[in-house]
Amino acid sequence: MDVTRYMQQLGKQARQAGREISKADTGRKNLALVKIAEALAANADTLIAENAKDLQAGQANGLDAASLDRLDLTPARIEKMVEGLTQIAALPDPVGEITNLSYRPTGIQVGQMRVPLGVIGIIYESRPNVTVDAAALCLKAGNACILRGGSEAIHSNRAIAACIAQGLAEAGLPQQAVQVVETTDRAAVGALVTMKEFVDVIVPRGGKSLIERISAEATIPVIKHLDGICHVYIDAKADLDKAVAIALNAKTHRYGVCNAMETLLVAESVAGAVLPILAEQYAAKGVELRGCLKTCSLIPGAVRASETDWHTEYLAPILSIKIVSGIDEAIDHINTYSSAHTEAIVTEDFTQARRFLREVDSSSVMVNASTRFADGFEYGLGAEIGISTDKLHARGPVGLHGLTSLKYIVLGDGHIRQ
Amino acid sequence: MDVTRYMQQLGKQARQAGREISKADTGRKNLALVKIAEALAANADTLIAENAKDLQAGQANGLDAASLDRLDLTPARIEKMVEGLTQIAALPDPVGEITNLSYRPTGIQVGQMRVPLGVIGIIYESRPNVTVDAAALCLKAGNACILRGGSEAIHSNRAIAACIAQGLAEAGLPQQAVQVVETTDRAAVGALVTMKEFVDVIVPRGGKSLIERISAEATIPVIKHLDGICHVYIDAKADLDKAVAIALNAKTHRYGVCNAMETLLVAESVAGAVLPILAEQYAAKGVELRGCLKTCSLIPGAVRASETDWHTEYLAPILSIKIVSGIDEAIDHINTYSSAHTEAIVTEDFTQARRFLREVDSSSVMVNASTRFADGFEYGLGAEIGISTDKLHARGPVGLHGLTSLKYIVLGDGHIRQ
Repeated sequence: MDVTRYMQQLGKQARQAGREISKADTGRKNLALVKIAEALAANADTLIAENAKDLQAGQANGLDAASLDRLDLTPARIEKMVEGLTQIAALPDPVGEITNLSYRPTGIQVGQMRVPLGVIGIIYESRPNVTVDAAALCLKAGNACILRGGSEAIHSNRAIAACIAQGLAEAGLPQQAVQVVETTDRAAVGALVTMKEFVDVIVPRGGKSLIERISAEATIPVIKHLDGICHVYIDAKADLDKAVAIALNAKTHRYGVCNAMETLLVAESVAGAVLPILAEQYAAKGVELRGCLKTCSLIPGAVRASETDWHTEYLAPILSIKIVSGIDEAIDHINTYSSAHTEAIVTEDFTQARRFLREVDSSSVMVNASTRFADGFEYGLGAEIGISTDKLHARGPVGLHGLTSLKYIVLGDGHIRQ
Repeated sequence: MDVTRYMQQLGKQARQAGREISKADTGRKNLALVKIAEALAANADTLIAENAKDLQAGQANGLDAASLDRLDLTPARIEKMVEGLTQIAALPDPVGEITNLSYRPTGIQVGQMRVPLGVIGIIYESRPNVTVDAAALCLKAGNACILRGGSEAIHSNRAIAACIAQGLAEAGLPQQAVQVVETTDRAAVGALVTMKEFVDVIVPRGGKSLIERISAEATIPVIKHLDGICHVYIDAKADLDKAVAIALNAKTHRYGVCNAMETLLVAESVAGAVLPILAEQYAAKGVELRGCLKTCSLIPGAVRASETDWHTEYLAPILSIKIVSGIDEAIDHINTYSSAHTEAIVTEDFTQARRFLREVDSSSVMVNASTRFADGFEYGLGAEIGISTDKLHARGPVGLHGLTSLKYIVLGDGHIRQ
């Protein structure tokens, strides 16, 4: 099979189906989501059997335990996919929403209408549930999508794709609105991320190396984040109980997630009061501490942090700590080393809070809350297709709105320009 | 001089100045705009003298009349730049605007704050007024910018840059917030559009070939449009007086602009009534008509349009005309051949208007109004840095908001994730 030609064919079909989906009624799109959920529930046995083939192949190919776990499609996980579909069906339809429609001095009315992006290419690794989640979000936002899962999940993804196709057909929508790439040839990815005429945006989901590779290769815009080097700054005017609770939660609630804190910044004037308490609690949880010189003098168990530490997303029970003179140094450190994902200040001081919110240049900026809240569900987006740290288009958790754009609409009564 | 190193230096300075500008008070930014306006007015003689050098060199180098006209800096044009600055100073400051701040079930408040993009690289051709317009928009939106004008305007641009620097200094803002590239070496453009660490977005302003070249070379996102192949569709239920007025205005108000109509679509049932009237008026204005077979049978003076015509932005007194069976064929033709700039329907039928607005996939879609209204001033944006036909980020005329992004803000009271 000629992979490029195959991908072009998928692209052409997606573009055509995208036009249909973009004008589909909200009710019909919701019906499709419900029918897909029903098909998944009804075919749970088939899904588990197909998934077993992937798991066996994975074991034979020496896949590590974490990857095998991500790949595993348990009845509980199927139930979760079904729930997710129901939730997305319940979200308001963003497509066609008109805002800011107002009269201009010439007499025309000008406003903006929310419109689908068109065709979304999604490239992801082992988790088969992404196939459903991503398809559902794209569909609800009026987009067609082309899904390229990991080769290790190909049987699972094909079985899920069959359920999606069934649901779309039952709702009277074109099945080619959601297409799963059937080949595991790596060249398919290269074709997908460069088919400008058929694909409008690429969303990679997976590890940093996958995302870097795709960003380097893509000629189509990519919605992405690479790192989550998140900071908490404990200000001189912090409530220390809140500071301890937040610093602990941000680091230890889950280690392997992008919104976990990686560096703690502490104002010099409160370091002596707060760091020993925190050090004890981190020690109890087995968190390794790497600090600046002053930190190490306050925490005997801490090792010296190197320049590399300030740049590092550990995704592990390791934390770097820096004592700073105050908010200026904290903001400066953050705007230098942060990956622009999420930063929080702990303070009771209104002016410091106001400055931090304005001056920290990250996609989520928080006052007196744990960085772990940076998440589409917690923000009320209903679901997220990913988190973007880029400046253009969507920034922060990307939900349905991030999968749409705005066009201008103008209403007149025969108006011509003078 | 090592051009790459020079550009890196500008980039580094812009990044630093961008941080300052991003947190500058609205009052201070407005003061800078007013001071720049004053400096331009006070130095009008110098500007004209420096511009004369460019004009002489242009003549010596055989620049065509249109380019020389664009290059010319007359007292009236200087006055217009001054006015533009005053208008931008009067616009509301988008930076820091907080929207959708609401409580979540967990107790945190989540909202979005409008933030500057950072550093904007602007690449343009002969018009020296772009130096001021672009700098002013970037400044007001809290961005630093690097301006790369045409080599043919280098003396004019340097003189304008001196006025901008003076205005920034008088307002106490860093002069490096607006930097004009001092070298005419073409390599400077290549460096500018690939300095990801220092530049966040590129805005090219000029002809299609300039924009194509920059888009191909850039690794940084580009806000742009290439073509303006705009359509007017006269529906079966059109008011024919409005149809004639709009079709005439959209084509003949100005020929060389991107929002001029290039193709007229007419519903078959009204073609006989409206095309002969239009043909007479177009003939009176010297517009050449190229039509489909049916059009040619109704308009004896029309020549047959080829497939190429439907793809062509004439920017000239030429119009292609196609008779279509109805709105389905019209929308289909538009979504196939349009450059997604601006399309209009003329109709009194509510349902057709509603469908056209939803289904036409262009950055501006109009009902009963001339495509010539697609413009930042007409839309009430106050000014525009360009028009984007892309789907991501800004779509349509790009004003201050298009030069900003949104970050999420979260306010809590010591909230941690459960």
